[in-house]
Amino acid sequence: MRNGKKTVLVINGPNLNLLGTREPHLYGSETLQDVETAGEQQGTELNANVDFHQSNWEGAIIDRIQQARTDGTDGIVINPGGFTHTSVAIRDALLGVSIPFIELHVANIHAREEWRHHSYFSDKAKAIIVGCGAAGYGYAISHVVKKFPERENVS
Amino acid sequence: MRNGKKTVLVINGPNLNLLGTREPHLYGSETLQDVETAGEQQGTELNANVDFHQSNWEGAIIDRIQQARTDGTDGIVINPGGFTHTSVAIRDALLGVSIPFIELHVANIHAREEWRHHSYFSDKAKAIIVGCGAAGYGYAISHVVKKFPERENVS
Amino acid sequence: MRNGKKTVLVINGPNLNLLGTREPHLYGSETLQDVETAGEQQGTELNANVDFHQSNWEGAIIDRIQQARTDGTDGIVINPGGFTHTSVAIRDALLGVSIPFIELHVANIHAREEWRHHSYFSDKAKAIIVGCGAAGYGYAISHVVKKFPERENVS
Amino acid sequence: MRNGKKTVLVINGPNLNLLGTREPHLYGSETLQDVETAGEQQGTELNANVDFHQSNWEGAIIDRIQQARTDGTDGIVINPGGFTHTSVAIRDALLGVSIPFIELHVANIHAREEWRHHSYFSDKAKAIIVGCGAAGYGYAISHVVKKFPERENVS
Amino acid sequence: MRNGKKTVLVINGPNLNLLGTREPHLYGSETLQDVETAGEQQGTELNANVDFHQSNWEGAIIDRIQQARTDGTDGIVINPGGFTHTSVAIRDALLGVSIPFIELHVANIHAREEWRHHSYFSDKAKAIIVGCGAAGYGYAISHVVKKFPERENVS
Amino acid sequence: MRNGKKTVLVINGPNLNLLGTREPHLYGSETLQDVETAGEQQGTELNANVDFHQSNWEGAIIDRIQQARTDGTDGIVINPGGFTHTSVAIRDALLGVSIPFIELHVANIHAREEWRHHSYFSDKAKAIIVGCGAAGYGYAISHVVKKFPERENVS
Amino acid sequence: MRNGKKTVLVINGPNLNLLGTREPHLYGSETLQDVETAGEQQGTELNANVDFHQSNWEGAIIDRIQQARTDGTDGIVINPGGFTHTSVAIRDALLGVSIPFIELHVANIHAREEWRHHSYFSDKAKAIIVGCGAAGYGYAISHVVKKFPERENVS
Amino acid sequence: MRNGKKTVLVINGPNLNLLGTREPHLYGSETLQDVETAGEQQGTELNANVDFHQSNWEGAIIDRIQQARTDGTDGIVINPGGFTHTSVAIRDALLGVSIPFIELHVANIHAREEWRHHSYFSDKAKAIIVGCGAAGYGYAISHVVKKFPERENVS
Amino acid sequence: MRNGKKTVLVINGPNLNLLGTREPHLYGSETLQDVETAGEQQGTELNANVDFHQSNWEGAIIDRIQQARTDGTDGIVINPGGFTHTSVAIRDALLGVSIPFIELHVANIHAREEWRHHSYFSDKAKAIIVGCGAAGYGYAISHVVKKFPERENVS
Amino acid sequence: MRNGKKTVLVINGPNLNLLGTREPHLYGSETLQDVETAGEQQGTELNANVDFHQSNWEGAIIDRIQQARTDGTDGIVINPGGFTHTSVAIRDALLGVSIPFIELHVANIHAREEWRHHSYFSDKAKAIIVGCGAAGYGYAISHVVKKFPERENVS
Amino acid sequence: MRNGKKTVLVINGPNLNLLGTREPHLYGSETLQDVETAGEQQGTELNANVDFHQSNWEGAIIDRIQQARTDGTDGIVINPGGFTHTSVAIRDALLGVSIPFIELHVANIHAREEWRHHSYFSDKAKAIIVGCGAAGYGYAISHVVKKFPERENVS
Amino acid sequence: MRNGKKTVLVINGPNLNLLGTREPHLYGSETLQDVETAGEQQGTELNANVDFHQSNWEGAIIDRIQQARTDGTDGIVINPGGFTHTSVAIRDALLGVSIPFIELHVANIHAREEWRHHSYFSDKAKAIIVGCGAAGYGYAISHVVKKFPERENVS
Repeated sequence: MRNGKKTVLVINGPNLNLLGTREPHLYGSETLQDVETAGEQQGTELNANVDFHQSNWEGAIIDRIQQARTDGTDGIVINPGGFTHTSVAIRDALLGVSIPFIELHVANIHAREEWRHHSYFSDKAKAIIVGCGAAGYGYAISHVVKKFPERENVS
Repeated sequence: MRNGKKTVLVINGPNLNLLGTREPHLYGSETLQDVETAGEQQGTELNANVDFHQSNWEGAIIDRIQQARTDGTDGIVINPGGFTHTSVAIRDALLGVSIPFIELHVANIHAREEWRHHSYFSDKAKAIIVGCGAAGYGYAISHVVKKFPERENVS
Repeated sequence: MRNGKKTVLVINGPNLNLLGTREPHLYGSETLQDVETAGEQQGTELNANVDFHQSNWEGAIIDRIQQARTDGTDGIVINPGGFTHTSVAIRDALLGVSIPFIELHVANIHAREEWRHHSYFSDKAKAIIVGCGAAGYGYAISHVVKKFPERENVS
Repeated sequence: MRNGKKTVLVINGPNLNLLGTREPHLYGSETLQDVETAGEQQGTELNANVDFHQSNWEGAIIDRIQQARTDGTDGIVINPGGFTHTSVAIRDALLGVSIPFIELHVANIHAREEWRHHSYFSDKAKAIIVGCGAAGYGYAISHVVKKFPERENVS
Repeated sequence: MRNGKKTVLVINGPNLNLLGTREPHLYGSETLQDVETAGEQQGTELNANVDFHQSNWEGAIIDRIQQARTDGTDGIVINPGGFTHTSVAIRDALLGVSIPFIELHVANIHAREEWRHHSYFSDKAKAIIVGCGAAGYGYAISHVVKKFPERENVS
Repeated sequence: MRNGKKTVLVINGPNLNLLGTREPHLYGSETLQDVETAGEQQGTELNANVDFHQSNWEGAIIDRIQQARTDGTDGIVINPGGFTHTSVAIRDALLGVSIPFIELHVANIHAREEWRHHSYFSDKAKAIIVGCGAAGYGYAISHVVKKFPERENVS
Repeated sequence: MRNGKKTVLVINGPNLNLLGTREPHLYGSETLQDVETAGEQQGTELNANVDFHQSNWEGAIIDRIQQARTDGTDGIVINPGGFTHTSVAIRDALLGVSIPFIELHVANIHAREEWRHHSYFSDKAKAIIVGCGAAGYGYAISHVVKKFPERENVS
Repeated sequence: MRNGKKTVLVINGPNLNLLGTREPHLYGSETLQDVETAGEQQGTELNANVDFHQSNWEGAIIDRIQQARTDGTDGIVINPGGFTHTSVAIRDALLGVSIPFIELHVANIHAREEWRHHSYFSDKAKAIIVGCGAAGYGYAISHVVKKFPERENVS
Repeated sequence: MRNGKKTVLVINGPNLNLLGTREPHLYGSETLQDVETAGEQQGTELNANVDFHQSNWEGAIIDRIQQARTDGTDGIVINPGGFTHTSVAIRDALLGVSIPFIELHVANIHAREEWRHHSYFSDKAKAIIVGCGAAGYGYAISHVVKKFPERENVS
Repeated sequence: MRNGKKTVLVINGPNLNLLGTREPHLYGSETLQDVETAGEQQGTELNANVDFHQSNWEGAIIDRIQQARTDGTDGIVINPGGFTHTSVAIRDALLGVSIPFIELHVANIHAREEWRHHSYFSDKAKAIIVGCGAAGYGYAISHVVKKFPERENVS
Repeated sequence: MRNGKKTVLVINGPNLNLLGTREPHLYGSETLQDVETAGEQQGTELNANVDFHQSNWEGAIIDRIQQARTDGTDGIVINPGGFTHTSVAIRDALLGVSIPFIELHVANIHAREEWRHHSYFSDKAKAIIVGCGAAGYGYAISHVVKKFPERENVS
Repeated sequence: MRNGKKTVLVINGPNLNLLGTREPHLYGSETLQDVETAGEQQGTELNANVDFHQSNWEGAIIDRIQQARTDGTDGIVINPGGFTHTSVAIRDALLGVSIPFIELHVANIHAREEWRHHSYFSDKAKAIIVGCGAAGYGYAISHVVKKFPERENVS
């Protein structure tokens, strides 16, 4: 809780800054900017804080997650992009801060290469939303705000 | 389209008739009846038809899917239960009728036994929603109605 | 032998009732009805009985195979459809009644997903016919009638 | 407990109706009818109810297990036959009703094909009895009646 | 097409010159000479050319396949013998000349050693015929003549 | 047969001397001494000899099995403990003396680590009894005495 | 095309700044500076732009690849160093910008540890050059300039 | 050697800055600050330099290791955290600078997930210390100072 | 605790009696006698009992561990030698007596054959010390004395 | 060295005589004759001998390699075609004559079937050039002439 | 039997004509000529025929084995060289002619690459002799002559 | 060398004391006593010492091998029986004493269960003799005496 509101942190991993410009038949034509604008608007409607962070740098994402430990974040929505299949360190960061999270993928990773079927996040995620396109962010933010418990503040 | 409305078929596989009575820490306390009532109400709000079918019998589920080919169904939401990991025949039925579908699991199958991580449905699903509890049915019905294309009638 | 004639039982598994309507580039445009009509005519020419059974229900197929034990069936032609890869119980039924059988697939299962390459029937089949389309039923019925030994009656 | 007596449900899966007629060198010459008669007699001696159910249909077995949840069954003895290696749904039914069970095989499945060595039931069974022939049912019924705790009634 | 007739090339790989003399319980007692005589007679009946080639030498088989590219062959029936499991080069030759082919085995390779279950030909074959003994050649030749399209001449 | 009586040898492998003192929630509270006392009493009732041998030493167990070849043993009940998963030499000893045997485990090994699911004994055992606690020894001794054939004496 | 010239981007991953100083028997004695000087000279001869980028930071490499999308780069030569075997994110960046690339390794990775044989880049590379030492950069730059098509500008 | 003293570099990977605050039952309650303070004091006692570096960024760790090549470091103690299982690049950096190192884990990685059992460092480490908690750093620093040879200076 | 002192049992498995004479480049030149002498001296300094046991016989090691259950041992340091990879029975003995233990290897087993990377002890060890040579025994004894809790006496 | 010139042997395996006529989108439209003509011209420019050999016969290739042992060949460029994945014998021939070699593939084998990713040559090749089309032969010949050491004559 | 004498055929596969000239530290310095001379002399001493055949061509070896079917060969000694691991066709030839054979390798294939550990011959060989150098041929010839049964003539 | 003679130690593992009495169709009818008598006679003929040791106890075999280090043994012939597949400790003993050895099996282990194909001895053996029955001991003893180098005495 921050300022008396539920707080959601939405993290997007590497190459998601290209959303909407890259392989639109797979990922749709909405850009990351569109997603963030819609998410903020949804925050207003739900009376919640919605923070966004995108980075191509694994270290930056870990730092951001660690910061969430004390900034009132109640739940995380993470689309780890290519780090889904390779980053134990981000997984450990999520477990280290003990914030429940939803794993999200814009396109269906199970319809792609065999090695994309394994995720370092799925067994620890509260929920997983795959293939709903940009609309998935909306479902996830809504789910965090409505269904996740309030997290007690850590200083 | 049936009677000029988008039509969603929600299929629940074996043992889901026990929902709400079995392992509530895993599956929550809402019963299948609660889910169906909520789904019908949601249908009314969205001006859509929402059909429900639950069976412990693989053959009954295949028959129901084949029937959907000509009854105006535009999208299927399927929680295959234990058939997730074993039924090629249901998979083939879904592909045979060419109706796009969403795979849904109430609890997080990736947090359970290793062999529950493989699904015969995921690579062909349009979307996958896992671990959102009974709320997941709502997201899925909404996604079919709003995002799936109308399906031309087959006689 | 039934009524002094060689008797062939042709079993078709789940979704084969859709034959001819589903993915015709893969399965051709002949319907199951066409196959059965042609098979009966072939039976007349060869002076043999040709029985047909199709079901989407695993239990129904097992029951039908068990019935063949005492109804004079000399050989079985089985296209197990999706049960090819999952049904130990049908395999056991075939072994339990000790009737030699031919495994048949309309399209080439080896040109499809990796897991479709394994069959619970191939190591026990007398013969396997794959990818010959609807014509394959004709070769198989002919092979049973001409090459399989008469089976002594079981009461 | 039903009518003040311990109650055992003995379930036999597909093809076990052929017991005694099929491969007697493997399965012995006692028929399923012999097993049931002996079981009922044993029930009388132990002052217990012994119910029997055999089916070639997976759905029927699941339904029967779910019924046991409220009919006073204290323990289940299940010989899943070919479903041993393929049915997650029956496993889930057993877990869903929370009735302790014994897995039983008439012949030694470990002396057969490699893929028969894996069972979807063994890790959740209270006990496993393999290769004792028809006598194994006797040991199992006795074990349930003498060693399993009474189960409180569910309505 | 050669001289206005459909043309089938039947290739037999290593050790098939021993057919009929070797393990007759597995392979039957018909010799390769018998097969070829029957094939030629069948060619006359169907008004088609049927060419035969047997070799223990992988290189000779590749050369013969390459020759088929320009000699009017419309379809190939190949029993690769031991090369089934080891020869990428013959596979590449078949793909290189773009002539559709049927894979054939006299006995059931799926009832033998595990490593005989994998074939370098099955995923590219139009059809596969296994375990029909010498009769299989007849089914295959018939299938090529009746069902394969005419191939346009390459010079 | 020894002294005109059926003779059963019960072998317990490493650490089973700790039975009853170690992890009683897994293995129950009966000690090895209790098991042996009950077994001897059962021998008296069945008019049979029941020998016991426990050792933490693989070599000692092999020697004891070899001795059984000529001391009139008709059947062996063996709980190999940790040697279940590692001792080819004890397996070879059992096969070398050609005495039929029952494999027994007090607790359910299939509910434990993955590598405990493989046994070097199961494919050669006449029967397997798992998870029946100390009562399992009783079933096994009874089964040997009543169901195993008399073994002709070897000198 | 940048300024009317073909443009090649040469990316070197982690530890390649140590080239020439580290294990010269494996990697030769030419330094990264030598490689860059030679590459620039080659650019002059071929009338092409040759850009160089080296980083030990995965994020920096992804950013640089994304920048290439709009700076007129026609082809990329990438030696991913240790990221070869672990970075899905760099792979995704290359696919995201849709610039054809050549994978290059100075030494022969197939003569090293088993896990170095798998690359996340090889199946998407246009070409792969391995073990040619520093000379390999020359072949690769030449190949991009002479054989890769001009890429249309993206703004 | 730096300033005539043995020099140890202690590197801690991602999330180890949370030491003491995160899952204390696993990692103990000593913080990274405590470890560093103790390490420096130990350096004084042993008349050695002890440098510390922690980062959540893989690139930063590689840069730091490369710097050690010329700053007089005689041995490295590295706790790679989540990079243990994923970073070939850090492994290559350690090999590239040819400084002997000790791999250290505060908790027992072998008691955790299967995929945590593989390390990209263990086969090249001089020694490995696992599960000794914060005390392990002390053993490792002591081992480097007392047992590792002096490294000749590289400029 | 024995005689009011912490008590450590150091067990060395097969071939460790050859320490110092065998492959000194791998194992160093200190003999087992040197290790024991140093360990006893360390015991005196720490006011602790240090017992040593070496055997080439698996059974002897199991017996010794079982004896430790009642002789006041507080912790075990075990170098299982070749039994590391093969002895479930010693593992079970350690778990059976419930004494915490440290696994130790003189040389780095991860730099040797692939199958030496798996240990039956690591997932249950409190700590693991590898590759520290004879010095490792010192660290381990110290760790047991200082960090392991006192064990209450078992009679 | 032959006649005072560096000597390169270029070997092409099975089906490469079809180059340019077969799947030009994969292999380009240059024929083997074009490659040989260009190679000879390149030999003249570099003042080197360039020998060519193509065969569909594994034995012929082995014989040719053995001949190279004494005919002054300094390096071999080999495109083993389908033998890449199957011929240990050609590998052994290359090692037996101790002539360094470059492995070459016209198209990218890593973008094809899984089993084409393994080569029996890569771990022993000096260099590997993949996917450069016919131009790759030029790079390889140049690399042998300029970078391979002269080989002393063997008689 | 030929001319009343036991007859041994010694087959050497690819590259064994290089014996003695290639890697003498592995294979010794005796040439194939030495082996044949010694074998013939041994034949004279044992009053047996010893035939030799070496070829780099798989087809030639198959032809030679087939010829042995009718030329009085009683046993075969085969060193398949590189074909050990790849030739199902030679295996099939040996089984097809039903002549017992000994598999022989001059050097220890188990001390080499992993994939050299698998042989297509070992499970069907009467005996296997590995690593005895050229002396192994002597043991094998002697074993065939003294221990193999006479083979009845096949015409 | 002992007393100026080459010295061979022949070790037989568990159950080989049953040789000749157990499964004579597999192992022949010669007893271990026959083998030892023949071996001693052979020793006399070759002017060599031949020592024999058989045990069912792994520890006893390790002790005996360690003793060979100083008793003048020049070579060991070992038939490890069931320990072939399970004893790292005996392997380590053989390597620890640095005496070259021959691995021997009376019957063909490659014609038996899959897991008998792996040996912990083969990659370190000088030679391997399999399936020659009791005669194999003769070949091995002869090979050690004639081909193994004299070993210098260790005190």
